[in-house]
Amino acid sequence: MSNMRKIDGGVCVADGFFADGISAGMKPDGAKDVAFIYSDTLCEVASVFTTNKMAAAPVAHAKNISKSNFILINSKNANAMTGQKGLDDIDDILHVISEKHKSIINPLMSSTGVIGVRLPKEKIVDAALKFELTCKDDTAASQAIMTTDRFPKTIAYELTCKDGKTFRIGAMAKGAGMINPAMATMLCFITSDADISKDQMQDILERVNKKTFNAASVDGDTSTNDTVFLLANAKSGCVDLELFEQALEAIMEFLAKEMVRDGEGATKLVTYEISGAKSDEEAEIIAKTLSNSLLVKTALYGEDPNWGRIAASIGASGVTCKEDTLSIAYDDVKLYEKGVNLFNEQTEIEASKVMKQDSFTIYCDIGIADGKFRAFGCDLGYEYVKINADYRT
Amino acid sequence: MSNMRKIDGGVCVADGFFADGISAGMKPDGAKDVAFIYSDTLCEVASVFTTNKMAAAPVAHAKNISKSNFILINSKNANAMTGQKGLDDIDDILHVISEKHKSIINPLMSSTGVIGVRLPKEKIVDAALKFELTCKDDTAASQAIMTTDRFPKTIAYELTCKDGKTFRIGAMAKGAGMINPAMATMLCFITSDADISKDQMQDILERVNKKTFNAASVDGDTSTNDTVFLLANAKSGCVDLELFEQALEAIMEFLAKEMVRDGEGATKLVTYEISGAKSDEEAEIIAKTLSNSLLVKTALYGEDPNWGRIAASIGASGVTCKEDTLSIAYDDVKLYEKGVNLFNEQTEIEASKVMKQDSFTIYCDIGIADGKFRAFGCDLGYEYVKINADYRT
Repeated sequence: MSNMRKIDGGVCVADGFFADGISAGMKPDGAKDVAFIYSDTLCEVASVFTTNKMAAAPVAHAKNISKSNFILINSKNANAMTGQKGLDDIDDILHVISEKHKSIINPLMSSTGVIGVRLPKEKIVDAALKFELTCKDDTAASQAIMTTDRFPKTIAYELTCKDGKTFRIGAMAKGAGMINPAMATMLCFITSDADISKDQMQDILERVNKKTFNAASVDGDTSTNDTVFLLANAKSGCVDLELFEQALEAIMEFLAKEMVRDGEGATKLVTYEISGAKSDEEAEIIAKTLSNSLLVKTALYGEDPNWGRIAASIGASGVTCKEDTLSIAYDDVKLYEKGVNLFNEQTEIEASKVMKQDSFTIYCDIGIADGKFRAFGCDLGYEYVKINADYRT
Repeated sequence: MSNMRKIDGGVCVADGFFADGISAGMKPDGAKDVAFIYSDTLCEVASVFTTNKMAAAPVAHAKNISKSNFILINSKNANAMTGQKGLDDIDDILHVISEKHKSIINPLMSSTGVIGVRLPKEKIVDAALKFELTCKDDTAASQAIMTTDRFPKTIAYELTCKDGKTFRIGAMAKGAGMINPAMATMLCFITSDADISKDQMQDILERVNKKTFNAASVDGDTSTNDTVFLLANAKSGCVDLELFEQALEAIMEFLAKEMVRDGEGATKLVTYEISGAKSDEEAEIIAKTLSNSLLVKTALYGEDPNWGRIAASIGASGVTCKEDTLSIAYDDVKLYEKGVNLFNEQTEIEASKVMKQDSFTIYCDIGIADGKFRAFGCDLGYEYVKINADYRT
C-alpha cells in the first residue's frame, strides 16, 4: 500500500519526539534500565491499562492524565504492591526531573520488574538527570525497557494523507509473553505527530487493542503493570483517521506477535482463527481457552496434531458447540469435519509438517452462526518451566 | 471417631458388591484395561458428570439412569467425539453382556482414554464375557481403570449407626490430575450398602463433590468423560445421613488429593485456603485461579516463595480485593500482611523450608468479608511437559 510505508526509527520517527536509554545500575551487568520519551510540544494521551485489581502505582498515577509530553520508564522494579509509598516515590522522582527540565508537562511513568519492592529512587533520579531531551536514540530506549525479552521490539510507519501531507507513527514494546508478574509485564509506547484528538485516539486505541494485545497470550496471567500509551503532538498538521487506525493495527499486531514469539520458552507462534461461533464473544472465549490450555500448548511443543485436545478444550470452554457441526484444520490440513474424524496416516504426516513451522494457524469452525475471533498464542516447553521455576534462585 | 472406621476392600466392602479387572488386550503390555462393578440387588444411582459440552458417549448414555446394578469400565479409549456410533457401540456391548448375565439391570458404562476413536467392541466384549460376577477383586478393578496414573486409588469405611447397625462405603478412582483429555480423565466409583434414596444421595453427592473433586486441579482442563457414580443397594438395612455425608466427604477428599498428588509430573500437593473474600463464590474463583496459574505452579516447582505471583494472580482473577487488606502466608510463615511486605532473609528461609515439604498450605486472607473456599493443586515441572508433549510420539 503506497500511502503506508514502514520506516526505521521507532518512537523517534514522529516530528518533535526524542528518546534515550541508559543504565541506572539496577540491572546487574550494567545494561540499560531507564528510558525516556519526550515531545517538544504537548501531546494528547490515549492509554489502556491492565485489568488487574492489584494495578501497580505507575498505572494508578497515569490514569487521569490526558495531556503530557514526557514518559520515564524503568525496568527491574514494577513498583507494584507498594501502596501510597509507591505513588509518593513516583511524584518525588518526576518532581526532580521536572525541576531540571521546565519544558516537561504532566510527566508519566511506567515500570516493570519485581513486585513488592520500593523503587531505588536515588539510582533512578541520578540516571534520569543525565538525560539530554534532544537525544533521538530509539534503540537505546527500546533496550532499556527489556526484562526477560530476548530482543527489542520496535516498528514505525510513515503515512500519506489524500492531500499529499505525511504523518508518522512509531512504537516500542517490551514483554516476553503476556506476563511473568515477578519479572516482566507488557508495556507499549506509541508516538505520533498526527493531528488527532484524545477522544478520537482513545476510541481507535481501544478498538485496535482488543484485536491485538488483548488477543495475545503466553501464559494467561495478567500483570499488575500492563500499559499502552499513545501520544500525539499534532506537529504534522494532518491526519487521516482511517489510515491512522490501519497503521495502528499493523503496529500493534506486529508487536503483539513479536511478544508471543518472544514468549518465555516459546518455539512457535500459533494463530487461532475461530469462526462459526454463536457470537464474537463466544469465539473470543474459545480462542483464549485454546491459547491458554496447557494441554494444547504442550501438544504444540511436541508437534503432535492431537485434534482431540482442541475439541475437548472447546467443549470445556462452556460455549455453545456440538461435535457434529465442529471442524478443525491445521493450516490447510483438515483433521475433523462436522463429526467425521479425518485423522489418518496421511493427514497425520501433513499436519505434523504444518506444526514444524515457526508459525501456523489452527482453524476451528464451530458451525453454528457467524461469531469470529482471532488470537495469538505459543507453545509451552521445558524452557518456560526453567525460566519461571528457577527465577530468584 | 469410633463410629467411622477405615477398612480394606475398596468397592467390594459393601454387602452384595462384586468387582474384577482383566486385560482385553488394549494396553500394549497386557495390563488390565477392563473392569466391572456388580451388585446382586438393584441399586439407587446418584451421579455427577463433566460440564464439558463435548461430553463423551458413556456420559450421554448414563445421564438418565437412576437405578442399575452393573458398571462396565474400560481404559485406553474415551469413546468421545464418536457421535451416534459411539452410543450404538455402548448399547451393543452392554446388550451382549446382559444376555449372558440375566441378573444385570440397566447396565452403565464408563470409558477413559484417546478421543475420537471408536471402541474396539470385540476386544471389550470378549473380555467382559469372561467376568465372573461373584468375584470380589477390588484391586484388579482399580488397576484396570488406570491410564497415566502412577498408583491405584481406593478407600473404604465402615460406619456404625446410633442403633449399633453398620453400613459400608467403598470407592475407587482414576485420574492423573484433573485431566489429560487425550489419555486420561477423572472417574470415580463409589458403592454402599446403605439404605438411602436416590434423591438423598444425589443431594449429598453434589454438595460433597463441590468441596472435593471440583476443588482439585492439575491443569485446569475439564475432560470429556469425568464421571462419579455412587451406587447404594440398601442391603445393610440402615443409614445415618449425617454419617454417610461425613464418610463420603472423607472418601472424596482423599481421592481428590490422591489424584492431584498423582498429577502428571507433580511433586507437591498444595492446598489453597482462601478466607475473607467478598463471597464464597469469589473465594472459589481466587482458589481456582491460583491453583491453575502457570506462574504460581512453576514457582511452586522451583520452591520459590514468590508471594508477588500470588498477589498478582489474585488481582488478575477479577474479584474484589485491595492490596492493603490482603494477607498471604505459606503454612505459618507470613510473607505479606495488610499492605506490609514481610519478605526478608529470615522469612525467605522459613518459607523455602515450608515449600520443600510434599504438601503444604498457602493461606490468602482477602480481608474484606467472610467468603471462603479451599482448593487443591500441584506444581508444574519438566515432567508435565514431557508427558504431554511426547504422548503419541
